[in-house]
Amino acid sequence: MLKIGKYELSSRLLLGTGKYENTDIQKQAVEASASEVLTFAVRRTSLEDGAKDAFEGIDLNKFKLLPNTAGAKTAAEAVRTAKLAYAAGLCDMVKVEVIGCDRTLLPDPIETLKASEQLLDEGFTVLVYTSDDVVLARKLQELGVHAVMPAASPIGSGLGIINPYNLQQIVEQATVPIIVDAGLGSPADAAYAMELGADGVLMNSAVAKAGNPVLMAEAMKEAVEAGRKGFLAGRIEKVQYAQPSSPVEGVSPHS
Amino acid sequence: MLKIGKYELSSRLLLGTGKYENTDIQKQAVEASASEVLTFAVRRTSLEDGAKDAFEGIDLNKFKLLPNTAGAKTAAEAVRTAKLAYAAGLCDMVKVEVIGCDRTLLPDPIETLKASEQLLDEGFTVLVYTSDDVVLARKLQELGVHAVMPAASPIGSGLGIINPYNLQQIVEQATVPIIVDAGLGSPADAAYAMELGADGVLMNSAVAKAGNPVLMAEAMKEAVEAGRKGFLAGRIEKVQYAQPSSPVEGVSPHS
Amino acid sequence: MLKIGKYELSSRLLLGTGKYENTDIQKQAVEASASEVLTFAVRRTSLEDGAKDAFEGIDLNKFKLLPNTAGAKTAAEAVRTAKLAYAAGLCDMVKVEVIGCDRTLLPDPIETLKASEQLLDEGFTVLVYTSDDVVLARKLQELGVHAVMPAASPIGSGLGIINPYNLQQIVEQATVPIIVDAGLGSPADAAYAMELGADGVLMNSAVAKAGNPVLMAEAMKEAVEAGRKGFLAGRIEKVQYAQPSSPVEGVSPHS
Amino acid sequence: MLKIGKYELSSRLLLGTGKYENTDIQKQAVEASASEVLTFAVRRTSLEDGAKDAFEGIDLNKFKLLPNTAGAKTAAEAVRTAKLAYAAGLCDMVKVEVIGCDRTLLPDPIETLKASEQLLDEGFTVLVYTSDDVVLARKLQELGVHAVMPAASPIGSGLGIINPYNLQQIVEQATVPIIVDAGLGSPADAAYAMELGADGVLMNSAVAKAGNPVLMAEAMKEAVEAGRKGFLAGRIEKVQYAQPSSPVEGVSPHS
Repeated sequence: MLKIGKYELSSRLLLGTGKYENTDIQKQAVEASASEVLTFAVRRTSLEDGAKDAFEGIDLNKFKLLPNTAGAKTAAEAVRTAKLAYAAGLCDMVKVEVIGCDRTLLPDPIETLKASEQLLDEGFTVLVYTSDDVVLARKLQELGVHAVMPAASPIGSGLGIINPYNLQQIVEQATVPIIVDAGLGSPADAAYAMELGADGVLMNSAVAKAGNPVLMAEAMKEAVEAGRKGFLAGRIEKVQYAQPSSPVEGVSPHS
Repeated sequence: MLKIGKYELSSRLLLGTGKYENTDIQKQAVEASASEVLTFAVRRTSLEDGAKDAFEGIDLNKFKLLPNTAGAKTAAEAVRTAKLAYAAGLCDMVKVEVIGCDRTLLPDPIETLKASEQLLDEGFTVLVYTSDDVVLARKLQELGVHAVMPAASPIGSGLGIINPYNLQQIVEQATVPIIVDAGLGSPADAAYAMELGADGVLMNSAVAKAGNPVLMAEAMKEAVEAGRKGFLAGRIEKVQYAQPSSPVEGVSPHS
Repeated sequence: MLKIGKYELSSRLLLGTGKYENTDIQKQAVEASASEVLTFAVRRTSLEDGAKDAFEGIDLNKFKLLPNTAGAKTAAEAVRTAKLAYAAGLCDMVKVEVIGCDRTLLPDPIETLKASEQLLDEGFTVLVYTSDDVVLARKLQELGVHAVMPAASPIGSGLGIINPYNLQQIVEQATVPIIVDAGLGSPADAAYAMELGADGVLMNSAVAKAGNPVLMAEAMKEAVEAGRKGFLAGRIEKVQYAQPSSPVEGVSPHS
Repeated sequence: MLKIGKYELSSRLLLGTGKYENTDIQKQAVEASASEVLTFAVRRTSLEDGAKDAFEGIDLNKFKLLPNTAGAKTAAEAVRTAKLAYAAGLCDMVKVEVIGCDRTLLPDPIETLKASEQLLDEGFTVLVYTSDDVVLARKLQELGVHAVMPAASPIGSGLGIINPYNLQQIVEQATVPIIVDAGLGSPADAAYAMELGADGVLMNSAVAKAGNPVLMAEAMKEAVEAGRKGFLAGRIEKVQYAQPSSPVEGVSPHS
């Protein structure tokens, strides 16, 4: 069970929306993923219409909608966007996303901190997209955010977990859920994130832009579960020298 | 469906035996893995007793037993071992394993080729453990072996797929199933092998020596399925520059 | 020529002090490195004695001394330490180092920014140790620091450049010198940093704790030069498929 | 001093020829590299003219020419090519290169072994291009070849050392010089090969196809020397947790 603030989730896979070829494929992928949290960009979605178009065909009673502040470049913009989402009656959760670099879409650490602080003051349940800076992640959790979401690599890049060292440090020092967000490209990436001890992953492009998004959604669901179990089961250590996989030391009746 | 010679398998996970703490845990792990093929070292196992002790509690009618020639350092030894296994009435399948290096347990390419050729002549269904040498893998399949089993890294090392380039080349030139054998350490490794297009994976230490072998077996089963689906679904390309995961180009009603 | 603030340097290798077995080896290593800038921890060095003991045998007229604020955990401590160094008449350069994590010695982004801002206001020439957070590096240079010093990996770890992607982004967006600081372990690491476009590297443990620090200092000097030339010369692109290194398309007189 | 058979070399950088934009640049790059051994494809070069055109402007008394058998796909072809080179009076050295894969230009292990055996019987000084298969490398040296030349990655790819594990194993078991051949792309790659304990490197595309081949040749020369010194000096171990680079344990007069 993944607990983010007051919300309890069975699935550790959060899914982005808005990049699918059409809403029918999106609907099927959402189902295949078994995800319970759907993110979307507030600026992109017509909130007046109850986000109707963006989530066409999806039974919104079955999901938590997680509005994100994509498009914001300052804390002020992010806060304003979050409030719009809240006013539309969607959810009190918000994913803080303040972009600091147009090329890489990597986050702005200072504005991200500020936005998180203000939204916590306003009573939001705050999930926050951040770089994999180890100390910044800790500062965010000290601030009281409800989940820290470090980037594996730039949004949409599919480069996977470039720096497993930092991710592991963040996880080991975590007091709130760590959700790996951005950059994951394949089921192996998702499993790896979970094996490193992440509490969940958020994916969008890796599913939505796959050759077969519905099948990929299913693959991601299984990979997250496999990685989680692998983490709990405890993997073997890496060693430089081989151990016979089929031990031959024993007495053989034929030799 | 994985087809190796005349055998058809639903599961793409082959499991080694003989490294578990006890046969009870082995039995549970085998079940959790849903594997249909169990490998074992002929030299280690008392064949006279119908391998009874080694597979205690496992219903041998439900599995294909894949004897391997672990311990052999020459083609002659490997062939002799394979014949012993066959004489014991186990199966006509054999995994050729001729070790050429005591430190790394990496295979001897020349003796491996020779053993494979002779066992094919004798009518065996031959699966062959090899290094990730691209041309050697092709020569083995040209010889007529029924599956090529390249090492991801040394047996028991848990180092994962050190050279994905070679594995990918082997897969792209394959005309027989490619089963990644040796070195995989975690569910992410298993998923990655499958995403690169492998037809299956064989694991032993990664499961048997995990903190919780039964849970790890289940994780590996799911990871292999996730990786296979990821391969079939078609992952996104890796790109250097980020794409907005939540596109914000569209007209926003609020800005 | 590397230009940091008003200082011009021929060597792109900055060297740490204080970890050598003795001051004689330190002296020889410093000479072998051809470095022109020597860093040292203010808190460790007796400033009253003109840092005499710490730099025994080294002609201090030939080097720029770069005091660092190692040991500081807040901006206030870092500023105080920098002022102590300046008061001792050493140099107006300071390397800001504010540690935010005792385990990894990774820097505190917020306190680092604050300390840099205050020391710039005081007229210091500020070089600043930072994580490889792309946006933070840019914010530091926008503040006016004279050099940005991203960590390749944790101080003293020898893990090399874990995230070349971030380093490359920092370099491509740089308007001030980028000096890779911390984590480099070998000449190849130093060369790689320079090939990615870094303007220089700072090393301490990798030289001081090497088996033969003097020979390693010489190796690092050459590696930095080799990497710089490699960067300027322009490396070949990485390609998935091979090109014949010895072209054989041409007409052969013998075939 | 690098000793290959009866030849003693001061430089550990072997340089390929025949891929430069023109012979003038080739001449300058050769000089800048300080290489003493130049390789060339026999099939490409007009041997009747004393290889005059191919090496225009280069004083052939100052270099050892190392003909390679590029273009050969069988042992027989390689042997024939080697004999042609010898008949032309160039040198008794030959680099055996038998390609087994048109896409990757990776070598054929079986034909490579055969060709090496025959050329040793004929009295050649044999350097042999091979994959990084650990056991095959050992078999080649047991055969008596004078140098083993494992590929870092496919010829001309610039992918660098994909599998440092295998290279390290080859080096640790070596009784003849190990020259890393093929795939190196940058000075850092060259330094890394040497740090792993290689006795030398052979480069062609990485120099000839660089933006500035002459400057890159100089960079490679320095990188090989730096890497060699790094190997001899003994690098620090990689550790997961940081050590203070500037120790602060000491008593500080000011705190």
